[in-house]
Amino acid sequence: MRRIMLRVAYDGTDYCGWQFQPGQDTIEGQLNTALSAMLKEDIAVTGASRTDAGVHSMGNVCVFDTSRDIPAPNVARAINGWLPDNIVVTESRQVPEGFHPRHCDCVKTYEYRIYNAKTDNPQLNRYSYHYDKPLDVGNMQQAADYMVGEHDFTSLCAVASDALTKVRTIYDINVTKTCNLVAIRVRGSGFLYNMVRIIAGTLIWAGTGRIEPEDVVQIIDGRDRALAGPTAPARGLTQIGIEYDEKLLTLKEECE
Amino acid sequence: MRRIMLRVAYDGTDYCGWQFQPGQDTIEGQLNTALSAMLKEDIAVTGASRTDAGVHSMGNVCVFDTSRDIPAPNVARAINGWLPDNIVVTESRQVPEGFHPRHCDCVKTYEYRIYNAKTDNPQLNRYSYHYDKPLDVGNMQQAADYMVGEHDFTSLCAVASDALTKVRTIYDINVTKTCNLVAIRVRGSGFLYNMVRIIAGTLIWAGTGRIEPEDVVQIIDGRDRALAGPTAPARGLTQIGIEYDEKLLTLKEECE
Repeated sequence: MRRIMLRVAYDGTDYCGWQFQPGQDTIEGQLNTALSAMLKEDIAVTGASRTDAGVHSMGNVCVFDTSRDIPAPNVARAINGWLPDNIVVTESRQVPEGFHPRHCDCVKTYEYRIYNAKTDNPQLNRYSYHYDKPLDVGNMQQAADYMVGEHDFTSLCAVASDALTKVRTIYDINVTKTCNLVAIRVRGSGFLYNMVRIIAGTLIWAGTGRIEPEDVVQIIDGRDRALAGPTAPARGLTQIGIEYDEKLLTLKEECE
Repeated sequence: MRRIMLRVAYDGTDYCGWQFQPGQDTIEGQLNTALSAMLKEDIAVTGASRTDAGVHSMGNVCVFDTSRDIPAPNVARAINGWLPDNIVVTESRQVPEGFHPRHCDCVKTYEYRIYNAKTDNPQLNRYSYHYDKPLDVGNMQQAADYMVGEHDFTSLCAVASDALTKVRTIYDINVTKTCNLVAIRVRGSGFLYNMVRIIAGTLIWAGTGRIEPEDVVQIIDGRDRALAGPTAPARGLTQIGIEYDEKLLTLKEECE
């Protein structure tokens, strides 16, 4: 058996998220169906990020094991013909059997996009959240700076999260505005359930002046979801990519 | 009766184009249905550009006449609740009864977008044409420069066009590349059936070296559709907007 890694881009609008669920249209389900049909064996992929319904990705990662001898780089070319237009495999390569996309260390990058204008923009509807009140991007960046670092993010994740620990590390957050599009780009070692969307909702509060940037300190210290802003809509969130140490992906090297 | 002008943005992917057709889902049909329901009288809009199936707009223009006394600026706010998410009225104003969006002089701007990369990008699928061979943007711009000016554009419009004259004026064409996205922005007094998409198909030929930029002279002079490049797919085309002389839109001024 060989382990093959895929990088997968998708428009999540019409899917019930990444994770396979019987009777639901999911990214994982589509990948399993397409790979099983093409390779003529039962394939079940293991994904790095189980993105929510409506969330997009430019490069989620998954692996699967196969007994077929198709050259690994050819999988990406071949599988796109079996997948719907809104899911695209951009890369395929063989990785060590010990490589696990969730258990190995990585850096994940997400971008939350806000279309900040009086009227809606139908071309951006699928990939951004339309917010019509003015946002102060400087205040949003200041508030974001208080979130960077290692913290217990209980206040900034969904109450339903069942993670064993809510301590995570955010490496950086950049808030930029280009024309009417405000982009919040977040890099971290991993994120809790709804965490990036709650970060976005809380930064919108800072952008409107509902909270001061330094209030983020008390929000995090309070370890109470009720202190933070709302969960911003899924459509605004795109996973940009996931980086692993190249050694982990190179044959004959394994993560523990 | 008052004449009210609307500016309308839409994602054309799921529509059979602008023009009303019985039993088909069209932008004009959606506007007529929504306006008639809201104003409680039969409304039929007259559009400036009858965009094709799959073509998008950031600001098509239409007018309608109404006997209701709703303040004209309020129509834009009110009507969006009656329209699907992928059609948005961005402006409404009263205009002179003599203003006709197709018969009055105007400047129309279109943008054709090409996602030029090895693999597809699902977030750009709806709003750009994925073309995987390398494009030389300098050659495309040089070829485009030969199209600017007043010409008989028989070679660059669909054979099915029933326009009385195929002479049109292109004011300028700018070809730019930002990351992997090549944008062809065209401004002109008006365009023939499929003209911008055939311009795009012909510039792609110049971008791959299939024709030299100066070959555009013979293509136009030949007045033969078969000489030009293919009609590029509708999804890549977005109407950016339509400008009228402000005098035409101001009450008490009329165009002839």
